[in-house]
Amino acid sequence: MIKAGIIGATGYAGAEAARLLKGHPEAEVIWYGSRSYIGQPYADVYGNMRNIAEDNCKGEDMAELAEEADVIFTATPQGFCASHINKEILSKTKVIDLSADFRFRDVDVYEQWYGIKHAAPELLPEAVYGLCELYRDQIRKTSLVANPGCYTTCSILSLYPLVKEKLVIPETIIIDAKSGTSGAGRGAKTDNLFCEVNENIKAYSPATHRHTPEIEEHLSAAAGKPVMVNFTPHLVPMNRGILVTAYASLAEGAAQEQIADAYQAYYGSETFIRLLKPGICAQTKWVEGSNYTDIGFTVDKRTGRVIVMAALDNLVKGAAGAAVQNMNILFGLPENCGLDLYPAFP
Amino acid sequence: MIKAGIIGATGYAGAEAARLLKGHPEAEVIWYGSRSYIGQPYADVYGNMRNIAEDNCKGEDMAELAEEADVIFTATPQGFCASHINKEILSKTKVIDLSADFRFRDVDVYEQWYGIKHAAPELLPEAVYGLCELYRDQIRKTSLVANPGCYTTCSILSLYPLVKEKLVIPETIIIDAKSGTSGAGRGAKTDNLFCEVNENIKAYSPATHRHTPEIEEHLSAAAGKPVMVNFTPHLVPMNRGILVTAYASLAEGAAQEQIADAYQAYYGSETFIRLLKPGICAQTKWVEGSNYTDIGFTVDKRTGRVIVMAALDNLVKGAAGAAVQNMNILFGLPENCGLDLYPAFP
Amino acid sequence: MIKAGIIGATGYAGAEAARLLKGHPEAEVIWYGSRSYIGQPYADVYGNMRNIAEDNCKGEDMAELAEEADVIFTATPQGFCASHINKEILSKTKVIDLSADFRFRDVDVYEQWYGIKHAAPELLPEAVYGLCELYRDQIRKTSLVANPGCYTTCSILSLYPLVKEKLVIPETIIIDAKSGTSGAGRGAKTDNLFCEVNENIKAYSPATHRHTPEIEEHLSAAAGKPVMVNFTPHLVPMNRGILVTAYASLAEGAAQEQIADAYQAYYGSETFIRLLKPGICAQTKWVEGSNYTDIGFTVDKRTGRVIVMAALDNLVKGAAGAAVQNMNILFGLPENCGLDLYPAFP
Amino acid sequence: MIKAGIIGATGYAGAEAARLLKGHPEAEVIWYGSRSYIGQPYADVYGNMRNIAEDNCKGEDMAELAEEADVIFTATPQGFCASHINKEILSKTKVIDLSADFRFRDVDVYEQWYGIKHAAPELLPEAVYGLCELYRDQIRKTSLVANPGCYTTCSILSLYPLVKEKLVIPETIIIDAKSGTSGAGRGAKTDNLFCEVNENIKAYSPATHRHTPEIEEHLSAAAGKPVMVNFTPHLVPMNRGILVTAYASLAEGAAQEQIADAYQAYYGSETFIRLLKPGICAQTKWVEGSNYTDIGFTVDKRTGRVIVMAALDNLVKGAAGAAVQNMNILFGLPENCGLDLYPAFP
Repeated sequence: MIKAGIIGATGYAGAEAARLLKGHPEAEVIWYGSRSYIGQPYADVYGNMRNIAEDNCKGEDMAELAEEADVIFTATPQGFCASHINKEILSKTKVIDLSADFRFRDVDVYEQWYGIKHAAPELLPEAVYGLCELYRDQIRKTSLVANPGCYTTCSILSLYPLVKEKLVIPETIIIDAKSGTSGAGRGAKTDNLFCEVNENIKAYSPATHRHTPEIEEHLSAAAGKPVMVNFTPHLVPMNRGILVTAYASLAEGAAQEQIADAYQAYYGSETFIRLLKPGICAQTKWVEGSNYTDIGFTVDKRTGRVIVMAALDNLVKGAAGAAVQNMNILFGLPENCGLDLYPAFP
Repeated sequence: MIKAGIIGATGYAGAEAARLLKGHPEAEVIWYGSRSYIGQPYADVYGNMRNIAEDNCKGEDMAELAEEADVIFTATPQGFCASHINKEILSKTKVIDLSADFRFRDVDVYEQWYGIKHAAPELLPEAVYGLCELYRDQIRKTSLVANPGCYTTCSILSLYPLVKEKLVIPETIIIDAKSGTSGAGRGAKTDNLFCEVNENIKAYSPATHRHTPEIEEHLSAAAGKPVMVNFTPHLVPMNRGILVTAYASLAEGAAQEQIADAYQAYYGSETFIRLLKPGICAQTKWVEGSNYTDIGFTVDKRTGRVIVMAALDNLVKGAAGAAVQNMNILFGLPENCGLDLYPAFP
Repeated sequence: MIKAGIIGATGYAGAEAARLLKGHPEAEVIWYGSRSYIGQPYADVYGNMRNIAEDNCKGEDMAELAEEADVIFTATPQGFCASHINKEILSKTKVIDLSADFRFRDVDVYEQWYGIKHAAPELLPEAVYGLCELYRDQIRKTSLVANPGCYTTCSILSLYPLVKEKLVIPETIIIDAKSGTSGAGRGAKTDNLFCEVNENIKAYSPATHRHTPEIEEHLSAAAGKPVMVNFTPHLVPMNRGILVTAYASLAEGAAQEQIADAYQAYYGSETFIRLLKPGICAQTKWVEGSNYTDIGFTVDKRTGRVIVMAALDNLVKGAAGAAVQNMNILFGLPENCGLDLYPAFP
Repeated sequence: MIKAGIIGATGYAGAEAARLLKGHPEAEVIWYGSRSYIGQPYADVYGNMRNIAEDNCKGEDMAELAEEADVIFTATPQGFCASHINKEILSKTKVIDLSADFRFRDVDVYEQWYGIKHAAPELLPEAVYGLCELYRDQIRKTSLVANPGCYTTCSILSLYPLVKEKLVIPETIIIDAKSGTSGAGRGAKTDNLFCEVNENIKAYSPATHRHTPEIEEHLSAAAGKPVMVNFTPHLVPMNRGILVTAYASLAEGAAQEQIADAYQAYYGSETFIRLLKPGICAQTKWVEGSNYTDIGFTVDKRTGRVIVMAALDNLVKGAAGAAVQNMNILFGLPENCGLDLYPAFP
């Protein structure tokens, strides 16, 4: 059994990691780390885990945890992991960081968009971006996985094959994304109160959201040149789910068939990507609770654009599920081990 | 592998049965029966099941299905199962009926409350009421299980120990129940449209809801005398979940301690009942997606009443999960086989 | 024009008072009082009020406000009004307090249930309980109105005629209430986050909620003897609305007809009470945004009980609308002045 | 008093028209037309209107209604108005049609996108497109107003000044729109059931939605040349509200300042358009229940695009409110007569 520790286990993403790992046949949770609930039973914080996870919460001492754990999940605010990790820890255990700390090759990009100084830039070269469908070969060899952002996973998976195969003009990419509210975390903020979110929809951080450079880094890699995109997230009155509606102008010669072929070539044998039939629009409800990303598209001949629609569960494929998938890769398990989660409806 | 067929697989309860059985290690679904979608891919009806259940829907021929299936789940409107079942079918296969057709000992009660003539009253003696926690010994020996109603399961489990142990005065029982909207089924009715349900709460069928006599039959059995209760269901703007708030006057000598002891004695070792700590109120979210029933209570010394609060997922423990639990009993499997479902939050 | 000041104008109830007063033909808002947003434009706090209320927020100095205002609305936490009000203020202006500070005749009841010392018990005799339909004659003569609680208004209006006319046995009254989340206020608490409330229902404070003694005081007055009730509030995933489902055993000789007559006699000519036809269950959506209380009932001959179902909008008839109705009475205006609000659907 | 008749008064848009007209000081509703509820009390269909609109529903005979009414609102399916209207009716009364029948100059566009033959193309020249902020001078002179679509109003108002002033490149316009579910009407369809919509978001009709040509007609007029746009609507789990997020590449020389100036020039003195401060993103909740359209924008210097975000209530400014505004213009009343509706929050 893989001994897993979770730091930040009382946030939504950490709690989902706990839930998934409790159901994982090859892993056990040995540490529910928390800043606010140390010493309290975990099931008092998350009543859903009553009888399932009766341990008391522990603290956030990563060095101590590294002595016991085969793998540490850090589901913590930006800056935490970079401040607490070091080479010694990485020599003893593997780390899957769900924050943005190790997602960027270029430390300047991180510091500019996140507005904090990176505490461990020397570890950046060791980190691998944990988007399994694209980088599983590199992930297999590392001890430090930078688990991707939720919007990012959905956006990159949607567009990567089209950009890589030069089926769209990268400069025309516009990503209009919609997220359930669990993406905002469990912090007690007025903006996230039920009455503020319910019966409401709004965009936020247009042109400035921090997932933008993360998307751009990987689409640029695909394009072989710097790509800038518009990314606009919206807050939707639902708990879970991310829907990406992405627009791009078709490149010369690109049409329905070439796009379908590209998706098939890249994702046809992926366990966790479901390619939707023509004319079917992705729905977040269809992936809720699962590790799937559903991808469909429509070609608009009138305007010469493709509209890609993709959905995932922000807490599963957008966070904890991807983290467990990364763990499976790190430990040589089948990627779907513990992740055969069938989406519930309704 | 147990070969399972589902008739009514395109309703919400049938779809949940399909989902749970697809994840069951000892069962396989060989028949997705439907009235409206015959010949269509099941995953076209339920997009969440894409790549998971790609079979085409079949019809509702129970006799034909009985030739192939080890167990048939009928998640069909009242009257269907009674009209299509017969001794020959029961000699070939086991039947778990999710409708009310075989829930009552007394056919008159059924015909009075449901307003339809029972088509197979001769089979009523063979049927066992499938409330596993109370009747598992009888279930083990039958071929025809009458799976309980959702409100009923929550209400009976809440009150049975208190009535049986004479801790409450049965005549004073009032059950105020709240249900998510999936309990109303997938039929296209104006009353169940999003805009009619959302941002709204209402009672319906006060004093006349059909689950009333079902609750009364089993509480009467517990009391050793006829018991009548008030049962008032409410429609809540959420997909899943039933919350029961039940009130009863304490019998002489009954207090906090005796009640806690009774629950412990009856349910302390039950896998799917979680007894909540004093002061903790059940929340439907804590059981969503799982087969749990959470039960807590408060004694009000001022008024001499106990307030019992219990929650379950109406599609799981209130329907398909209970049905699978019954299947496990029928086939000698551990009751939790395929039902280790950890509730998601949020 | 009546000059009105609102203290606590940035809470939900205060904001609703601001909105209603802006639409009132005989009143103007001269003071948007706030603790947290002093000096900021009110429309920056409540974007819905852009172009409607562009004033800056002021502080909470009740004495200063009393110099300018004809009436002060205090939509503030328990204890605020009692601590800041005095005879001099009351000699200059009228005060409508939306908190519990002046709701109880007996200061001990207040101090016991609210756990705070009352700062101005000497003013209690001057205060009139502002349930307009029952006490409008006394309200007319006072300068200090204790605006009732939201649950309380719905509960008392539902049961008062039945208790007063001795149609029910008061000792058997059970009130099971359901509230939208705006009743919990705008404070940034984890429990009120969207993801905690959405897709969830729970009871809270069973047997101990502070609105209990307020209900009991007025039902006791109706009964002519002390009455104790069970009152259980529930949190519903919707913004607005209170639904009360109340149960009571019928007194000797009481039946459908007598109950209907009693409601007709008490409320038949009330502008803001709508008596529903037999068989119609109240829905919170039908009163949303209005000052109505809808009341319907069912007699259960089997159990000898009446089930009363009543609905109101907690921020209107349950708070700000009632406060404006009280203001209208205080200033000799028609009670519906500025309150002809037609409920929106959906 | 203006005598108003509503055909289709039991649909959501018609019901909102009824509600607004009941509150209008210069109008009275003399006819609640319905296909399904003839002879039934209107308040039995819409419980919110109890005591407010107690009339019985009448039929849909437009000729008969024209004898009595000063104005007829047709809130009916596509094709109804064109099939029932004629010159004689228009000589006796004014007609405000909330369907698409008279929205297009070019009958071919209508017949192509709606797939039905237009029954009264000879009346198209008389019809005026009822987008008041743009066409009030023409509206004043007509008897037949084609009330705009909900998505359309929000999209055209958002983009018209920018296209007209050549601040954006029209070919680059992409409109990603999100709508509450009341826009789908009150028809009993599975897709609009609570459980299908709740906790879900999806796009629908990408590249083919019928509001596309309506948007294009008016943006083409602004551009002085044919403009094609991408328009993608999404279904959001909320009752009311439309949010438009529109993207366009800036024309040479266009920046923050020019865009702000254009909006100010076009809408600065409009009662029902609120221009948001820089950095403020429109929220549908802020306009709910009102006739406002809120418009804000962000310039993304990195990509050279402007992102316009606009919100309105689809049943008010997107349907019935605009219809009443049109009525006010037709009868020489102030445009805001009966429309001083302050948005509720929460």
